[in-house]
Amino acid sequence: MKRDVVLREVGLRDGLQIHPQFMPTEDKLAWIRAEAAAGIAEIEVTSYTPARLLPQFADAEQVTSESLRIPGLTVAALIPNLRGAQRGVELGVHKLDFVLSVSETHNQKNVRRSREESLADFKAVITLVRGVPAATRPKVCGGLATALGCSYEGRVAVSEVVRLAVAMAEAGADELTIPDTVGYADPALVRTVFTAVMKEVGSLPVAAHFHDTRGTGLANVAAALDAGVRHFDAALAGLGGCPFAPGASGNIVMEDACFMLESMGYATGVDLEQLLAVRQLVRNALPDIDMHGAIARAGLPRGFVPATPPRHRDARPASVS
Amino acid sequence: MKRDVVLREVGLRDGLQIHPQFMPTEDKLAWIRAEAAAGIAEIEVTSYTPARLLPQFADAEQVTSESLRIPGLTVAALIPNLRGAQRGVELGVHKLDFVLSVSETHNQKNVRRSREESLADFKAVITLVRGVPAATRPKVCGGLATALGCSYEGRVAVSEVVRLAVAMAEAGADELTIPDTVGYADPALVRTVFTAVMKEVGSLPVAAHFHDTRGTGLANVAAALDAGVRHFDAALAGLGGCPFAPGASGNIVMEDACFMLESMGYATGVDLEQLLAVRQLVRNALPDIDMHGAIARAGLPRGFVPATPPRHRDARPASVS
Repeated sequence: MKRDVVLREVGLRDGLQIHPQFMPTEDKLAWIRAEAAAGIAEIEVTSYTPARLLPQFADAEQVTSESLRIPGLTVAALIPNLRGAQRGVELGVHKLDFVLSVSETHNQKNVRRSREESLADFKAVITLVRGVPAATRPKVCGGLATALGCSYEGRVAVSEVVRLAVAMAEAGADELTIPDTVGYADPALVRTVFTAVMKEVGSLPVAAHFHDTRGTGLANVAAALDAGVRHFDAALAGLGGCPFAPGASGNIVMEDACFMLESMGYATGVDLEQLLAVRQLVRNALPDIDMHGAIARAGLPRGFVPATPPRHRDARPASVS
Repeated sequence: MKRDVVLREVGLRDGLQIHPQFMPTEDKLAWIRAEAAAGIAEIEVTSYTPARLLPQFADAEQVTSESLRIPGLTVAALIPNLRGAQRGVELGVHKLDFVLSVSETHNQKNVRRSREESLADFKAVITLVRGVPAATRPKVCGGLATALGCSYEGRVAVSEVVRLAVAMAEAGADELTIPDTVGYADPALVRTVFTAVMKEVGSLPVAAHFHDTRGTGLANVAAALDAGVRHFDAALAGLGGCPFAPGASGNIVMEDACFMLESMGYATGVDLEQLLAVRQLVRNALPDIDMHGAIARAGLPRGFVPATPPRHRDARPASVS
């Protein structure tokens, strides 16, 4: 499957993280399997944060192990620290997502460490991973939270984003992610920050993780595309709304991002209609969760021709057809 | 007031057109006055469509006359035909918005004429307007409905958009508007179509009119900006949802467009907080209308610095403060 752009599902982690209702493990796995069948190549399936802090991830082991059985799927998980990385290595997860915040205040609030301490943690994760035999060694992705704005500090200096991106790259990151953690970004800022980072980290893949909190999510995707970004995080139904802004969107809506990219001629490898059908599965499992999505409401344009041929259709599991 | 980009309010026409409840004339005027005070330079205040077809515009004469008393505001109105243009000329409106559809099917369904007949109507409007003394002569804007996609025909040929744009320009249009009538556009298509049209019509201003039906509204604004567009239609609270897609957005949300542009460094001349306050006025007048808006829910980013200095604040009318 040729993909011009890779869409990564993060709803199971970023979308569920603050949802008060536990999503049954079997429903999580049905969601993961259905999206993989729709052509999603990578899913952040859980977080190795202790269950006493985030009870939603009490089933992290089972979700990881079962996800690893899905052929062709890259299975990623968030790690808060070295202990999380150890859990991931033991489980054989494909990718570890480590996050530090470019904003010192945010990093302190989020992980109770300075950024330099977090950078040292990141280096310890890399050291751990390098001890794993190459065949089963997970990739390590370095995330730069608040790179596009912080709810404590406002705009952060682009030079600080670049400095920390380069530090993570030099430490041995396999890829980087630049998230708009609180949904502050605009297309001009996106272009500036991604261009500045990508200029300094060579061929290292740099992914974008946008929240649609202020309506600019897809505009930021288009701006990042212009800057050369080809990896995007998104969440089915835009799960993950902000607890401080009732009704506000969370992550960009996977279906809408997929529609826009396919309409622009970028093959995502995803069967859009099959992806849309996965919404019902989430709705059945979590009747109270806020679900967003323009394509789900308005439908595809008449005569819409996606860049990805709808060849996954035959693989649609009966449960979401 | 220096403006890098001009935002035009179309909610009173495009937003109210299909709303079943008549908005009292005084509420319309309060809305118009409050937005003008917030720095909106141009408002499409009504349509000169016969009241038996669109009862919402039964007060077109009064709305026009009172709006014309607001200092500095450009008052525009939609005209369905030559009779509408005559009404506009008699009232002394500043701008007449004439629309033909690039899709032949849509034009037939919308105005029961072929596109060539509509073009002849447009020329008759130009002839009428040229007979008006220069001091009170309204400008004429030519709109190209369905230029970015049609719910009957799907995608339309870019060459047809260019052909009809050039025909309207040669007929004497003072400006053009390219609308995404049914919300089909993506940023790549926007760039292609606007670039193609602007290349052929010289210095004639070309405005963009986007609907956010499929989530791409602000992404399309950013793409049009890249193509050199500096005039955008939008509606307060994204009024004007599609009757066939319950809950779907209508026009792009004025407040969100204003936020994105100001955040990108484009001065709109609009005081964003004052603009946001106008929402309450619409909510009070039309309790049942669907209102959208990410900034209204999520609030402005911490430390947000708009490109337009907030100098309108003192002019805020007491009724919306």
